[in-house]
Amino acid sequence: MTKLPASGLSLGIDIGGTKTHGILLDADGHRLAESIRPTRIGPDGVVATTIDVVADCLGKVDSTDRTVLIGIGIPGQVDPAAGLVRTAVNLGISELDLGPRLSAALGLPVTVDNDVKAAALGAANHLGIAGGDLAYLNFGTGVAAAAVVNGRLVRGHGNLAGEIGHIPVDPRGDRCHCGQRGCIEVLAGGGRIAERLAASGPELTLVNLVEAAEAGDPTAVAEAHRICTGIALAVQLVVLTQGSARVVLGGGVVHAAPDLVPRVQQILADRAAGSEFLASLGLAERITVIPAGYPVAAIGAALVGMSRSRARQLAPIG
Amino acid sequence: MTKLPASGLSLGIDIGGTKTHGILLDADGHRLAESIRPTRIGPDGVVATTIDVVADCLGKVDSTDRTVLIGIGIPGQVDPAAGLVRTAVNLGISELDLGPRLSAALGLPVTVDNDVKAAALGAANHLGIAGGDLAYLNFGTGVAAAAVVNGRLVRGHGNLAGEIGHIPVDPRGDRCHCGQRGCIEVLAGGGRIAERLAASGPELTLVNLVEAAEAGDPTAVAEAHRICTGIALAVQLVVLTQGSARVVLGGGVVHAAPDLVPRVQQILADRAAGSEFLASLGLAERITVIPAGYPVAAIGAALVGMSRSRARQLAPIG
Repeated sequence: MTKLPASGLSLGIDIGGTKTHGILLDADGHRLAESIRPTRIGPDGVVATTIDVVADCLGKVDSTDRTVLIGIGIPGQVDPAAGLVRTAVNLGISELDLGPRLSAALGLPVTVDNDVKAAALGAANHLGIAGGDLAYLNFGTGVAAAAVVNGRLVRGHGNLAGEIGHIPVDPRGDRCHCGQRGCIEVLAGGGRIAERLAASGPELTLVNLVEAAEAGDPTAVAEAHRICTGIALAVQLVVLTQGSARVVLGGGVVHAAPDLVPRVQQILADRAAGSEFLASLGLAERITVIPAGYPVAAIGAALVGMSRSRARQLAPIG
Repeated sequence: MTKLPASGLSLGIDIGGTKTHGILLDADGHRLAESIRPTRIGPDGVVATTIDVVADCLGKVDSTDRTVLIGIGIPGQVDPAAGLVRTAVNLGISELDLGPRLSAALGLPVTVDNDVKAAALGAANHLGIAGGDLAYLNFGTGVAAAAVVNGRLVRGHGNLAGEIGHIPVDPRGDRCHCGQRGCIEVLAGGGRIAERLAASGPELTLVNLVEAAEAGDPTAVAEAHRICTGIALAVQLVVLTQGSARVVLGGGVVHAAPDLVPRVQQILADRAAGSEFLASLGLAERITVIPAGYPVAAIGAALVGMSRSRARQLAPIG
């Protein structure tokens, strides 16, 4: 584990399909500088964008005599030990040795991890439970999770842990892009939600969905119920599998439609009304939502840079 | 973590609804003595049976000048720190301070854990990967799992982790005793399987089920498919959630009908044929079965006694 020098800086970078967001922190976790740039797609574009964001952030502080540890959160299959990224489809990457390329270009230590895993560390830090347990559920284009147990990320073989989007929960459900039927991602993944809303006509969007459902629009009622059922099942699944006391929800779906969350909690309460066992778990009460403006993945990436996988408790950030 | 003295003995006890099984191991994991007694039901019965098994085992060796660490695996909700057992229904226990009572009666250190969690440690030891990762799936009367990550049990809040039997996988499935519909336990729990087989008439049993299915009996074909689908979904669920490289199957259902396992692997292969994503996971190849005669829970209980939750690699046992 890389130790953070007392005088060191850490720079966390969240590489997304649309934008790349860098945050420079001092050793106490205070935010010193920030940079957001549109992500250029493809391996060379991603490397160049990241270098620009690093230069932006470091240009804003006097860092000549300090060590800077760089942590990256990026979608796709990531091998943190080698700094390799595979099949980051939205970034146009089939394979990229991102860690070695950035490290050579910048002359600084670079650690790369999956963006949802980085975000789980950021979420643990945000909640002040960096040494504890939580599950982070990300409802973006797809659905994925990451768990922190005793302050460490659960990685599994090949960093696979957390691919809960492709657990089937309905044998008669719609076909998933992965080839299975009734995956959680079919219910609650942003990509599939967008397809269904587009097919329903121009009126409904994720942003106005709950309002339309409250007004009684039957398509909106059904769609909101479908999404919330998927989120509720994902919450139940990670609690029963990993025993997580806290389940943190994040990702574009939740941030575009935060009003879905009380509906998720209502579904969990309705299900608990029919099952003493479920009632005893208090699933609805385990849910926390990451505030929409909180850069959980970039903060988490900085933590990745500091420690690879051991969560640190920083001072309140933000 | 309790350290095992170099000269110490450890005694693992698996308390089941039918029998209580004790195994005495030396510091290298060699089996010195063994005792099996019918379990007397109720709090006092369980305590008395356990004391008898301890006396049996210790009576077979000269242990007067040695430390003996006692580990217990028992069904129900267990608080290992306090040695408390709750809602072990088949044992007639609603609440029992088993650890303190045994420790006071025996004058020896006693550590108590859930039987499936103990068995996961035993399974890791059996496979020679005590410091690594695995998921242990137990198909007994109910269905439960336990995961070892980096050599440690995943406990979760309140030792809840692993209650995968009550994850619903079919919204139109049969009602579970827990009140939900379509739980994994409805498909593959021994209690529900026995109910269905009894309702089908006197001919079919778990032991002859696969033979009858191979002979074309439609009830047997449907029932075998239902059980194997439940087991297959449980395997997929723990791999996608925790990334387990090895999934170990155990419990009465698997031991009574080991021929179900190739059918589980066939279902996983069939599902993989329709999904590149599933195919890439190689789920069928991750499966190992605990040999029917291997006392995985008693060995695991001994490991619980030695270390509470850190897996140790013993010499080959058995």
